[in-house]
Amino acid sequence: MSDATPNFTLVTSCADQIGLVAAVSSFIAERGGCLVESANHTDVHQGWFFMRNVVNADAMSCSIEAFREDFDSLAQRYGMQWYLRPGGEKQRVVIMASHASHCLADILYRWQADELQCDIPCVISNHENLRSMVEWHGIPFHHVPVDPDDKPAAFAAVEDILERHGADCVVLARYMQIIPPSLCETYVGRLINIHHSFLPSFIGANPYQKAFDRGVKLIGATCHYVTEDLDQGPIIEQDVVRVTHSSNKDELVRLGRDVESSVLSRGLRYHLEDRVLVRGNKTVVFNA
Amino acid sequence: MSDATPNFTLVTSCADQIGLVAAVSSFIAERGGCLVESANHTDVHQGWFFMRNVVNADAMSCSIEAFREDFDSLAQRYGMQWYLRPGGEKQRVVIMASHASHCLADILYRWQADELQCDIPCVISNHENLRSMVEWHGIPFHHVPVDPDDKPAAFAAVEDILERHGADCVVLARYMQIIPPSLCETYVGRLINIHHSFLPSFIGANPYQKAFDRGVKLIGATCHYVTEDLDQGPIIEQDVVRVTHSSNKDELVRLGRDVESSVLSRGLRYHLEDRVLVRGNKTVVFNA
Amino acid sequence: MSDATPNFTLVTSCADQIGLVAAVSSFIAERGGCLVESANHTDVHQGWFFMRNVVNADAMSCSIEAFREDFDSLAQRYGMQWYLRPGGEKQRVVIMASHASHCLADILYRWQADELQCDIPCVISNHENLRSMVEWHGIPFHHVPVDPDDKPAAFAAVEDILERHGADCVVLARYMQIIPPSLCETYVGRLINIHHSFLPSFIGANPYQKAFDRGVKLIGATCHYVTEDLDQGPIIEQDVVRVTHSSNKDELVRLGRDVESSVLSRGLRYHLEDRVLVRGNKTVVFNA
Amino acid sequence: MSDATPNFTLVTSCADQIGLVAAVSSFIAERGGCLVESANHTDVHQGWFFMRNVVNADAMSCSIEAFREDFDSLAQRYGMQWYLRPGGEKQRVVIMASHASHCLADILYRWQADELQCDIPCVISNHENLRSMVEWHGIPFHHVPVDPDDKPAAFAAVEDILERHGADCVVLARYMQIIPPSLCETYVGRLINIHHSFLPSFIGANPYQKAFDRGVKLIGATCHYVTEDLDQGPIIEQDVVRVTHSSNKDELVRLGRDVESSVLSRGLRYHLEDRVLVRGNKTVVFNA
Repeated sequence: MSDATPNFTLVTSCADQIGLVAAVSSFIAERGGCLVESANHTDVHQGWFFMRNVVNADAMSCSIEAFREDFDSLAQRYGMQWYLRPGGEKQRVVIMASHASHCLADILYRWQADELQCDIPCVISNHENLRSMVEWHGIPFHHVPVDPDDKPAAFAAVEDILERHGADCVVLARYMQIIPPSLCETYVGRLINIHHSFLPSFIGANPYQKAFDRGVKLIGATCHYVTEDLDQGPIIEQDVVRVTHSSNKDELVRLGRDVESSVLSRGLRYHLEDRVLVRGNKTVVFNA
Repeated sequence: MSDATPNFTLVTSCADQIGLVAAVSSFIAERGGCLVESANHTDVHQGWFFMRNVVNADAMSCSIEAFREDFDSLAQRYGMQWYLRPGGEKQRVVIMASHASHCLADILYRWQADELQCDIPCVISNHENLRSMVEWHGIPFHHVPVDPDDKPAAFAAVEDILERHGADCVVLARYMQIIPPSLCETYVGRLINIHHSFLPSFIGANPYQKAFDRGVKLIGATCHYVTEDLDQGPIIEQDVVRVTHSSNKDELVRLGRDVESSVLSRGLRYHLEDRVLVRGNKTVVFNA
Repeated sequence: MSDATPNFTLVTSCADQIGLVAAVSSFIAERGGCLVESANHTDVHQGWFFMRNVVNADAMSCSIEAFREDFDSLAQRYGMQWYLRPGGEKQRVVIMASHASHCLADILYRWQADELQCDIPCVISNHENLRSMVEWHGIPFHHVPVDPDDKPAAFAAVEDILERHGADCVVLARYMQIIPPSLCETYVGRLINIHHSFLPSFIGANPYQKAFDRGVKLIGATCHYVTEDLDQGPIIEQDVVRVTHSSNKDELVRLGRDVESSVLSRGLRYHLEDRVLVRGNKTVVFNA
Repeated sequence: MSDATPNFTLVTSCADQIGLVAAVSSFIAERGGCLVESANHTDVHQGWFFMRNVVNADAMSCSIEAFREDFDSLAQRYGMQWYLRPGGEKQRVVIMASHASHCLADILYRWQADELQCDIPCVISNHENLRSMVEWHGIPFHHVPVDPDDKPAAFAAVEDILERHGADCVVLARYMQIIPPSLCETYVGRLINIHHSFLPSFIGANPYQKAFDRGVKLIGATCHYVTEDLDQGPIIEQDVVRVTHSSNKDELVRLGRDVESSVLSRGLRYHLEDRVLVRGNKTVVFNA
């Protein structure tokens, strides 16, 4: 993690075969690129290779555009999926919240403190109560109420706002509404949720009540990409906190808020730094 | 946790009402008993009160027998369930194991190192492979194979061994066989299992395979009392360990072994020190 | 942790002797007080007894004033130090910050979310940069620059502000200035600091640089009461986070911010809920 | 972590420069080697590059001997330090213990369970009490008492035993004697100690007493390479466990034993799997 610029991040994946690390790292070295971080992984069961390189381009002999063009040939040869993100580039992250403020507040704080490499073009909520907090951060706030009898209208409005703001990524910061399949589809791999349990425990509504009733000794939270299957998408990050017999349900909720916030912000950071690669229903997270 | 003797532990519980701490602690103080540890809890939802006292009886004005007799009157007045265990008394713990050695080895080591206040009259296993380890500790080893076509015969033999050895407590140290209801009944609240997942995640067989397939970022283990409902009994203790995309199933199993061992030994220690009180399907664990 | 009112918290400590739990709990029960939480501890080495009771006074036969008066007699009999805090009472907490915002932001968020039972009459800082954040929360902000050549003047101003706002408790949220002995004295047991290391590791300035240079695999933070001896006061709470060889110093600082914030907020909550009792240079923390 | 054989591990490090990952991975790919694991790191401050590759040689076009020979030319070109360890090769680890058994028992258990890829040619102790446990594992036990008035004689005997058994690595499993400089020198980077505190806290003797006196809320253990400077060598692994005001010194010692055992065994496993690279007083640990 160097401060040197200009850097760029190159993320690739493809069917496993001999020589992939060599091919990619040689390609970079031949053009004078210097590896700031370089990580790779082979998923033996899926037969799939993943690689992430952060490259310092100070001494590079070609432009990033030329690099891209050439790399595409290499990628075609190996059947690689890939993308390159210039170091200064910020993804546009729209946050959707409901009534609860903790995850949203945590993200906004970290954004303002420059911990999260992104722009936040707006926040969408089905309630009004968080407007002032959002606007104090200089971020537009859109109130889109969700009429239980006409959810499609609400989500059409949401989709419209996302489009207008050019959302690269959508974060459900305890949004508490089920996202329609079409929206899941549009933002596949870019729609991040925080579930307030240690999945797959306590899928669905009211996980803290269920945890209290079951008498577990740890509660947790799960950050995952949203798919059409509720609470079943690829897991990015999880964590837990210890509870005891003396923790009533309100106490679980209070302790849970901290885990939810930190797990979501960590997961979002990994996503924004291009550390998360998805294959099937699993993630590779290069967060060393 | 004092070394002073003679100590005894007094455990009580009853329907919640005003004056319970006062009644019990006054009863002890009036007889010159000195509180070494004293913890209590009220479960508001179940309307139930729990208390555990470790008493130093050095200066006590009456015998433990007289104390017991008098306390019974008090207990009847308040409708208390209670028991008193003299400090030196060791419960007789029979351990049941299968092929895997890690939980058994951990318990035997701690027993030998005087970390676990108990006698281990014997170990029962459906395999022969752990005999030498058990016998080196000076503990009898009973091999009771489980014929899939005649499980009742095996469990009759097990029950007989438990009875002959006067088992106060039975520990399933990765025993891997389903315990018949009658045995669950006989040893209710004294039959301890370690489940190799963070319950209620991955109930049933092959939890590590399921965890690997789901792509979770933490795996865990759960120590619980066994009831007729598989993996549903009151939870005593749980813990987790972090895993990554690079952990294959064998790696999960390896990492899991450490969590299983430590969670089971901790749960067993809490049980042996009379720190665990059960009500409904939940436990109070006075482990401060 | 019940929501029932009116509650009050009674905290006592004295030289250890037989019958203390009985005396206090009987006193409460005789007046119809119902124990919501009750914890006690004896420090054998210091020969000192500590007790904290949260009492539900719904059915109490006397006023809190009468309770206080009567309890004073009991306390004198046993040589007890004690205080009683009515459930609704909020301590006045003045926060002192410097340039870094994370601990302050975390406390303000929790205060606004009603997680911290206190009033915050003002924030004092030697820099201007956090004014807007503080004022958005509706809290007065006092800028008191610290001239290195005339620190006494600055601290006279600080002391004056604390007095005018009737501070019950002062929190150094990464204030980064050494507090003069007289101020330590005035607020002994009420002046809380967060040190950005796992004390006693890396006492003094620049702990993250020291941690980086030493190559530790965990970094931490320590919440403690301030005494005249720098970084030596009674520890309230500590925690750590894992780091690796790939974490440079900036990364340590970033990871450390989260630990600092959560450890300070937890320590402050314990203090505000009267869970922390100090004796010598050690604390008892009834946080079960 | 694949089970495929034959594998080998190639560990390299050198002054940082462009093209190192490319050079090493191309070298391997050109010979048909398949990367099972590949990790690298650049220490910007020390200007040093580290790389570890686990290579599956099933489809390799040359022998390991030829690979070694060729690689030496490459290594000379880049000024690399390097070594190659064939997959089946087991290092010879001599364990030195004193009176306490927990770390030794844990290592022996893991060794027997095939968790640790090594041979244990013997155990050396200055006490007799662990002989039976060691010999039950089929391992020779050498009793070398340390006469305080003639330590050189004892360590001459130790050195002789180490030599005769061809020790590749020496583990101080709570050995509790200061190792003479000459022995530190001979086994530099191969002499592993467990210190019973979270270094740099509580350097020297009696760390648990010091921790108890200071009132810390976490205790820990540190696995490090031994150098002439007591408790100052490069840290391999650390961990902590939570304690409370109710933990007396004996309780700290008991809780500490678990952390010591697991931290030492983890550190040793990293060492044996060639995951630990030392530079200056710091380690790179490729343990993803």
